[in-house]
Amino acid sequence: MSETFRLTRQVEFNHCDPAGMVFYPRYFEMISATIERFLADIVDYGWSSMGVSENGMGTPMGQINVRFANPSYLGEWLDLDLTLARLGTASATFDIHCSSKGEARFDCEATIIHAKTGGGKSAPWPDDARACMAAYLTATTPTQKEPET
Amino acid sequence: MSETFRLTRQVEFNHCDPAGMVFYPRYFEMISATIERFLADIVDYGWSSMGVSENGMGTPMGQINVRFANPSYLGEWLDLDLTLARLGTASATFDIHCSSKGEARFDCEATIIHAKTGGGKSAPWPDDARACMAAYLTATTPTQKEPET
Amino acid sequence: MSETFRLTRQVEFNHCDPAGMVFYPRYFEMISATIERFLADIVDYGWSSMGVSENGMGTPMGQINVRFANPSYLGEWLDLDLTLARLGTASATFDIHCSSKGEARFDCEATIIHAKTGGGKSAPWPDDARACMAAYLTATTPTQKEPET
Amino acid sequence: MSETFRLTRQVEFNHCDPAGMVFYPRYFEMISATIERFLADIVDYGWSSMGVSENGMGTPMGQINVRFANPSYLGEWLDLDLTLARLGTASATFDIHCSSKGEARFDCEATIIHAKTGGGKSAPWPDDARACMAAYLTATTPTQKEPET
Repeated sequence: MSETFRLTRQVEFNHCDPAGMVFYPRYFEMISATIERFLADIVDYGWSSMGVSENGMGTPMGQINVRFANPSYLGEWLDLDLTLARLGTASATFDIHCSSKGEARFDCEATIIHAKTGGGKSAPWPDDARACMAAYLTATTPTQKEPET
Repeated sequence: MSETFRLTRQVEFNHCDPAGMVFYPRYFEMISATIERFLADIVDYGWSSMGVSENGMGTPMGQINVRFANPSYLGEWLDLDLTLARLGTASATFDIHCSSKGEARFDCEATIIHAKTGGGKSAPWPDDARACMAAYLTATTPTQKEPET
Repeated sequence: MSETFRLTRQVEFNHCDPAGMVFYPRYFEMISATIERFLADIVDYGWSSMGVSENGMGTPMGQINVRFANPSYLGEWLDLDLTLARLGTASATFDIHCSSKGEARFDCEATIIHAKTGGGKSAPWPDDARACMAAYLTATTPTQKEPET
Repeated sequence: MSETFRLTRQVEFNHCDPAGMVFYPRYFEMISATIERFLADIVDYGWSSMGVSENGMGTPMGQINVRFANPSYLGEWLDLDLTLARLGTASATFDIHCSSKGEARFDCEATIIHAKTGGGKSAPWPDDARACMAAYLTATTPTQKEPET
């Protein structure tokens, strides 16, 4: 069974656009915050300890896909639920499902690369970080070689 | 031959993160601005004239996929080049290629829906808007039935 | 004795600039959020219930002064403590003191106007809102008639 | 006669709030951009060349006061006009007047400090930067020694 990491955020005025709904670029700040807190608070390998501002390591975004379901409004509480779809040697693909009181708002698939800052080379995840993240892999991932029958 | 709409932006301090590179949620603000100016300045059917803040029509984002190629740095000039991949009855899928001096920064595919604000019903594009947007469809889209030869 | 309303926020990556510190425009989003939550959660007269997005009432900023003391860094917890310096017929002047573990980060004085949205006319605060806000006036404000000596 | 530096910006959807007007924290991003371009393009001593992201020098904000006059709306063009009110050994106080077609939007007084990044010590402006900035001092500033009476 995989674990799920949840970040909860209330929709604020600064997230909303003239149509009164969350402006989608603000969702990407929430997505970033979800990954930020997961790495710092759960994996214990956050952007501060990586040295992202001191030419250390970082986790640049490689690819991100988001499908929007329903609009979000001022004052609503959003649950951002994170699991891992794939855990590569130097990458991680998150599934982030956002909902409010169970109603879907968006689904996001985001792949980060563990790499030297400044567009530098990728590097394997530290062992402790990898072990911790593995608990959040969804059940059937990664598919290991099946025994012959 | 399809036309291309270009928005050019300089990377500012407010776009950059502690690693000194553009923070990817800021790219989504640039993507939004590219679509905003295309609709307002080229299609002559912008968010003001749609009445997005007065319970009129809007263009909520349906799905957006972005693949990042190289980081962008303070002071660089970015070219955001927009074409149309698909033009539906009440939707439009944009391809936005971002580069700086010809070096790729990201590729974006974004599908907007022409709909009543507040999560309302979709509605066909006005004829004039559709005709104008069609010029930006990439060459082979949509493939019409070819005449027999 | 006046009461104090506190909002606590953790510094996130999206708040930080290439110098690794909070970029000061992000502080203004936190200031806005402090006033937003005070009005909604304490005064029970928030921007949703005012109808700020439906041509109802709003609280545009009239004047804001901020003096910065020390920089804030990724991961720090900030306390934003709000009191009222003045409560006018249709305005309110907040004092917001921001600190982290007791170290000052900035002091803000912000005056909002209770007015019709869209640059409309100001209007007196509703009685219930006024009564609630008055508890947050700092002790010596407003100066009442002094007893004769 | 003092010179004036002007930055012109169009109000975009991402600047606007549910009341359909510019959300004031976005003005602070424009204020930052005005100072950024003035330092980089006019003074030839911008944040990149100071080494703000490499533990070099920076210009943290010391104090900023803004008085708002009229709201700004989607699509409007804003002129941000910068002059210098005071030029200290290691500081500069800007006056930034924002207007649209001559109608006032806000007036800002902002004092930056020339200092080592990370909350470090202030340091005198380089001579070339100082000489260049001096041309933007408003006419009667700085007040020189008064004649004896």
